[in-house]
Amino acid sequence: MSGYTHNPGYSSSFSRHHTIQQRPYSYQQGPPAGADPQLWQWFCAVDTDRSGALSVTELQDALVNGNWTRFDLDTVKMLMNIFDTDRSGTINFNEFAGLWKYIAEWQRVFKHFDRDRSGSIEGHELAEALRSFGYNLSPPLLHTLEIRFAGAPTTSGVYGPPPGITFDRFVRACVTVKTLTETFQRADQDNDGWIQLNYEDFLKIAMNAP
Amino acid sequence: MSGYTHNPGYSSSFSRHHTIQQRPYSYQQGPPAGADPQLWQWFCAVDTDRSGALSVTELQDALVNGNWTRFDLDTVKMLMNIFDTDRSGTINFNEFAGLWKYIAEWQRVFKHFDRDRSGSIEGHELAEALRSFGYNLSPPLLHTLEIRFAGAPTTSGVYGPPPGITFDRFVRACVTVKTLTETFQRADQDNDGWIQLNYEDFLKIAMNAP
Repeated sequence: MSGYTHNPGYSSSFSRHHTIQQRPYSYQQGPPAGADPQLWQWFCAVDTDRSGALSVTELQDALVNGNWTRFDLDTVKMLMNIFDTDRSGTINFNEFAGLWKYIAEWQRVFKHFDRDRSGSIEGHELAEALRSFGYNLSPPLLHTLEIRFAGAPTTSGVYGPPPGITFDRFVRACVTVKTLTETFQRADQDNDGWIQLNYEDFLKIAMNAP
Repeated sequence: MSGYTHNPGYSSSFSRHHTIQQRPYSYQQGPPAGADPQLWQWFCAVDTDRSGALSVTELQDALVNGNWTRFDLDTVKMLMNIFDTDRSGTINFNEFAGLWKYIAEWQRVFKHFDRDRSGSIEGHELAEALRSFGYNLSPPLLHTLEIRFAGAPTTSGVYGPPPGITFDRFVRACVTVKTLTETFQRADQDNDGWIQLNYEDFLKIAMNAP
């Protein structure tokens, strides 16, 4: 458990304070000063239309799970939502640097909790991960979360092993719990464990969940 | 607007009462009595491993939007959740018949509201569809819904047209609003427009949203 007692979603180590360069870089100019050369190379490779910024589609084409499946569109949109800090609709190089760090951190978390090295997270591994982040969900709730974020079974057999949770869906599961918990805590102003919602607020919260 | 004043999700015309045949059909035996031959042909084509039932993966491989993109895994899981009435984890032929009818009905709805024949649903078209189903959402809420279910932009250009909502995501958007509204109405027992939730119930509802 050591080393993972915090939720990476909370960590301040994910840089979101780079806002110096607003316009797309010219590829003739090369990387911005101080850029990690390897990261710059990767950014250029992903930016297939050479626009100087990454679209949702370019990002989705570039992000793969350990089993070579692509990230879900919803995970890519969630990541864009976190890292497109200037709300341009695309990811520039500095935003990409933050996103890259975030993914690398989550990969370490994923590997740590994938105890059986299956390449996917099973229910009890998810429960342990969330517990270590400080979220104590009931068994039925954990089951709901597992069902929701589990991938597709690889066989059509009814009695086969339950499908695990791929890396990208594991991140989304954890960010979902984090976001919903924070939303609940904000709404529970008197801290009595209950919140009051009207229809509009209820829909808004449910639809804004990752 | 005529012809679409009801939400197809509510309709009782989607058959869910076939439970006679529980075991997979033998392909040697041919289709079950009374089966639509065309539907049987399609079922056999989708059942690539010849197991007699469709897995999530087989269904996802078979379902495509008007623009040839595959259905999202989450849409396929939502459909499985609705039509796998015997909870086998797969879709048998009778369950498939219900699913097929449901999709065909939604396709008619989609075409009806895709006013500009763009092959995708834009924000105002989504608003009109939901209004016709009896859901009057506020403009900010409609915007949230549109952002959530819109696909990926086809270009990386920041100033390009907003991406529309593909067929499968349109269905998910509508079913989401329907499910959440029903959940709210159930929880609002005294019908005063407010509900009280604790953390556990709050997470459960948010995670069970399609």
